[in-house]
Amino acid sequence: MSSVASLAKGAQPHAFAGVFSLLAPHMADLDRFLHGQLGAFEPEIRAMVDYCIDTSGKRIRPTLVFLSGWRGPVAVSPDLVRVAAVVELVHLATLVHDDIMDEADVRRSRRTASREYGATAAVLLGDALFAHALHLATQFPTTEICAAVSDSTRRVCAGEIVQTLRRGSTNITRADYQRIVDLKTAELFRVSCFLGAKLAGFTPDFVEAASRFGRHLGIAYQIYDDLVDFFGDESRIGKTLGTDLASGKLTLPLLALLERLPAAERTTLLGEVTGERPPQPALRIRQMRELGIFSIVAEAVHTEIDAAAAALRDWPTQAPTPLLLGLCDSLRAQLTALRPAETVGS
Amino acid sequence: MSSVASLAKGAQPHAFAGVFSLLAPHMADLDRFLHGQLGAFEPEIRAMVDYCIDTSGKRIRPTLVFLSGWRGPVAVSPDLVRVAAVVELVHLATLVHDDIMDEADVRRSRRTASREYGATAAVLLGDALFAHALHLATQFPTTEICAAVSDSTRRVCAGEIVQTLRRGSTNITRADYQRIVDLKTAELFRVSCFLGAKLAGFTPDFVEAASRFGRHLGIAYQIYDDLVDFFGDESRIGKTLGTDLASGKLTLPLLALLERLPAAERTTLLGEVTGERPPQPALRIRQMRELGIFSIVAEAVHTEIDAAAAALRDWPTQAPTPLLLGLCDSLRAQLTALRPAETVGS
Repeated sequence: MSSVASLAKGAQPHAFAGVFSLLAPHMADLDRFLHGQLGAFEPEIRAMVDYCIDTSGKRIRPTLVFLSGWRGPVAVSPDLVRVAAVVELVHLATLVHDDIMDEADVRRSRRTASREYGATAAVLLGDALFAHALHLATQFPTTEICAAVSDSTRRVCAGEIVQTLRRGSTNITRADYQRIVDLKTAELFRVSCFLGAKLAGFTPDFVEAASRFGRHLGIAYQIYDDLVDFFGDESRIGKTLGTDLASGKLTLPLLALLERLPAAERTTLLGEVTGERPPQPALRIRQMRELGIFSIVAEAVHTEIDAAAAALRDWPTQAPTPLLLGLCDSLRAQLTALRPAETVGS
Repeated sequence: MSSVASLAKGAQPHAFAGVFSLLAPHMADLDRFLHGQLGAFEPEIRAMVDYCIDTSGKRIRPTLVFLSGWRGPVAVSPDLVRVAAVVELVHLATLVHDDIMDEADVRRSRRTASREYGATAAVLLGDALFAHALHLATQFPTTEICAAVSDSTRRVCAGEIVQTLRRGSTNITRADYQRIVDLKTAELFRVSCFLGAKLAGFTPDFVEAASRFGRHLGIAYQIYDDLVDFFGDESRIGKTLGTDLASGKLTLPLLALLERLPAAERTTLLGEVTGERPPQPALRIRQMRELGIFSIVAEAVHTEIDAAAAALRDWPTQAPTPLLLGLCDSLRAQLTALRPAETVGS
């Protein structure tokens, strides 16, 4: 099954569903390109790499590359396909490593690489994917692409490290949360837009605008994703709700809940974050609904979506602009669809 | 303590001790450069990166860079220092990841990053070191340096993956062992020599010869290191002997022992490799001594050292040649020093 086909019938709600048909040929090219890379890996590890590549993922970062570099529905530029593969491989490598650390068994309805090959091999497999992503990034005339990708990769890792070290910690502010999101998610969104616009030959000013767009959309997307963890439909997202609470991650919905709970309840919830008490996700989700947490967090998502759209305000006639703004609309629509029934209109 | 000072009084036998005084200013420059990189990391992870960099390691790969790029004892070329930092950071990243997988507590008389910060953070810290190494590699005029480093990194990881997947497996031939060593160790030795000679402006033919030298020296060094695991001095190498047996790694000393043991004993040893029986390192070391395994494996080391030296045969007047050949002499001397008393002259 191609990733595009799987996207269309994806098990998870997809925030950017609207651009699928437009990008179908690009995604098909990307899939061909990624599978064509197998030969670059040592024969002993090709099957493992293939397993990681074939994850029927959402391909959000390639979407950002293709749209930011949009010049019309003509033949896909090989440069864009290559750089889309670079950012997707970096992302896949982080997923492989994330799944080791989260001790995740299943991702996208398949066993994680960590379960399939063991944590040890998965650490190295992620490394090999990183290394090959960077290698592909050297296949451009200048070092600029590779420099941008390696810089972003380091920032993504730094964000994940900060998040990891803060797990189970209750001493986290909204600013800390914002910083983690900015590094671990928004950075790769940002660089995807940067690379797409840059390689398509847009002016430095527009490249900068597209980068800012990507960063804010990335922050919005991560906050949305953190909302899904408490307000999603378990059967659609394919995992139990409240995993962030169970793993001690103080995401924005939990921070907002803490701000609004009475003191005694607050202490109990903090005990669940530190692991001193068993987590009570069902109770916390009910409290979130009662205290209007969805609207508070959704507001933060909207603020970031608006900031993303504002970054493109001066560029209404550039070909990527309406498409990128379409991503904003898609995310807004997904957020509306996620809103719990009892709080609609609240 | 600078790495050079610690090298001189190193806790482990150092195969390449002879070139220390010559390279002292280079290594001091490298240490300054590496510590100067801390600012490139996000503030939240600087202390962790500093901990990894300050490992008072043997700096073998930088040694290969400096010697392969040797033009005389003049001012150290900034290019060589930078690329030495690149290969050392790649190596440090692999050590951080290795220690997670080996569940190692101590390396070079300090807690491993994995024990100090937890396995999860250590996975990401290794990733950040990789990413920054590649980023430094983009700071050359062309993409060639970064392409070589990323390619090598992928091969090193592939070698480690193959080794990992083969752990506890008894179906390993000498050719399999050679392949693993070639990827996991010789590759980074090779590319260190390649980069040093290349950046110093030597002719393509000499760069190629230096690369071949590095590869064979790397194979020799790894086999030597595998011998140390059975024939070393526990108090000097700072760990118990026979860890490769305990972790199910069929290295050349074990392969050679298997070839020479009677069938019943062979079956027992294979059970120790697979983990079905508790390992008996003391017994196996005694058998290795009785059956002359040291000489057999040392022969393999000498073959590779000779191949390394032969790679430089046509380049006697190039400045790096006598220094690189000096590394061969150092390794031969270390091997002689390792030879167990009862088999001297065998």
